[in-house]
Amino acid sequence: MKAGAPLQPFEYTPKPLAEGEVEIQVESCGICHSDLSMIGNDWGNAVFPLVPGHEVVGKVVNVGPAAHRFKKGDRVGVGWFTNSCRYCHPCQQGDLNLCATAEQTIVGRHGGFADRIIAHEMWTHPMPAGLDPVSSGPLFCGGITVFSPIVISEVQPTARVAVVGIGGLGHLALQFLHHWGCDVTAFTSTSGKTEELKKLGAHQVASLKNEAELDKLNGSFDFILVTVNVSLDWARLIQLLAPKGRLHLVGAVLEPLSLPVFPMLMGQKMVSASPLGSPAVTADMLDFCVRHKIAPKVETFPMSKVNDALTHLRSGKPRFRIVLQNDFS
Amino acid sequence: MKAGAPLQPFEYTPKPLAEGEVEIQVESCGICHSDLSMIGNDWGNAVFPLVPGHEVVGKVVNVGPAAHRFKKGDRVGVGWFTNSCRYCHPCQQGDLNLCATAEQTIVGRHGGFADRIIAHEMWTHPMPAGLDPVSSGPLFCGGITVFSPIVISEVQPTARVAVVGIGGLGHLALQFLHHWGCDVTAFTSTSGKTEELKKLGAHQVASLKNEAELDKLNGSFDFILVTVNVSLDWARLIQLLAPKGRLHLVGAVLEPLSLPVFPMLMGQKMVSASPLGSPAVTADMLDFCVRHKIAPKVETFPMSKVNDALTHLRSGKPRFRIVLQNDFS
Repeated sequence: MKAGAPLQPFEYTPKPLAEGEVEIQVESCGICHSDLSMIGNDWGNAVFPLVPGHEVVGKVVNVGPAAHRFKKGDRVGVGWFTNSCRYCHPCQQGDLNLCATAEQTIVGRHGGFADRIIAHEMWTHPMPAGLDPVSSGPLFCGGITVFSPIVISEVQPTARVAVVGIGGLGHLALQFLHHWGCDVTAFTSTSGKTEELKKLGAHQVASLKNEAELDKLNGSFDFILVTVNVSLDWARLIQLLAPKGRLHLVGAVLEPLSLPVFPMLMGQKMVSASPLGSPAVTADMLDFCVRHKIAPKVETFPMSKVNDALTHLRSGKPRFRIVLQNDFS
Repeated sequence: MKAGAPLQPFEYTPKPLAEGEVEIQVESCGICHSDLSMIGNDWGNAVFPLVPGHEVVGKVVNVGPAAHRFKKGDRVGVGWFTNSCRYCHPCQQGDLNLCATAEQTIVGRHGGFADRIIAHEMWTHPMPAGLDPVSSGPLFCGGITVFSPIVISEVQPTARVAVVGIGGLGHLALQFLHHWGCDVTAFTSTSGKTEELKKLGAHQVASLKNEAELDKLNGSFDFILVTVNVSLDWARLIQLLAPKGRLHLVGAVLEPLSLPVFPMLMGQKMVSASPLGSPAVTADMLDFCVRHKIAPKVETFPMSKVNDALTHLRSGKPRFRIVLQNDFS
């Protein structure tokens, strides 16, 4: 009901479905760090009462005017976006996630910690058979956020890659990159995760705090994917990149990056960032998950216990993502 | 003879030609800002006595053992590099300019403000007929430094591009990008250059200091090439990039870059840097110059007046590059 307050039951009557929209009965919804940011109004764009939740799996229960992609009963997923303009240059290129006026699921509208949610069919993703409806929600935000960088960076299966930060996003990145064919290093600050991360696909597990270990990795990574949203020693990461290597960020780090030009220049290195991914790349991700049996590792809570789940997330202990199962209906 | 001192005549006996090397009689040699940096030992890697000069055009006069690419009398060019190891990963990929142990023309050996210079044939570029021997020297450092970024960034002819800083490098970048088919904006801090820059290929000329003008350009550039080596308002340049846009640096800016993550992330933007270019890309550049009649705009000095030429360069007045013509032999 207000910034930082515990969540509580809230009822609203949604607007009638607009052209192209569908209504979805929520089966489950993952919890993302962005939900915490919105609940706390950390980015200043939250509108209260706020219904968080943007990693939805559910079934279509109503089809709006001129919507033709789905029929009632189809299982679908919804992530961070629910609509895009379709006519700006990025939209026309297929980059609907770069649309400057894209509708965001929990910004100025209500999200997926709910019985039902509305989304335009263009951002409603068909769920392939073979994906588990309970654990798949996190693919639609956490998953696509780390899958899209692999695609847009044209990471090759011959590449040596590293993932920094192995939480909700990172544990999916390890799986994607392993099945992409790459040599995968997991950087984590949590000790005792080694065997677990190797099972997820890491060939090596290392720490950014171990200088002796790091020195051996200088100049070795073609691609480093940073999933955390705090400042790191960026110059050290640049040093870890191979010639032509790329450092890619997906977390909204608030402090400016500080980057040394000379090593970037001599090694022809680059630094980039990206938000989520397009519907087409999301479809490719889902296919890839089915083919390689990739799934988020989740802990489940009943949706009515969302405040307990949020407390658990804030503790940093979930391995690796929390999913709320709808127990309202 | 020592850091910062005026140049003076100096004689040395070169080592016998090693395997694969050729000796070149220097016809002309451009002056690059890197020569000033080396003369001043700004980077701490200069060895004195120093013979600067790394934008050489000349004729092969001696062919070393096992060298087979050239015969005496062939006209050739030499730039920043004179040898690479051939066996490191970048070398084997064709990126001889990213070889960590590449031999640099004026680092620990003697360069092109001279009668003669020695280089390995792999870094000795055949000069196509149709290129003027007096004005072409600057292509081999200044030219390739801005041509390579266009190639490695896969800049498309449909792109809107900008060049920041229109000196020895920038005036060549304008020509390259114009003939690449792009919409080209020149950013210069020097007023009164507009007509000249339009003749070189700029469709628009603007200033980074004119905020009203800049606001109209927000989000418009697919590629911004920065040729200066001083700190700029990097956040402002990121703002000028279109979604998926790329900011590319070729100047050895000494202060770290400060970059805002959120706009990079939302717009899927990237920042990169590069040093010179490979021999293969150099050959493509020379072909491109012949086909499109692209040439450096130069002011010439006799090589014996090199100190006058350096003074002129330090004044920032040359339009756009100085070339020394050999008057020793």
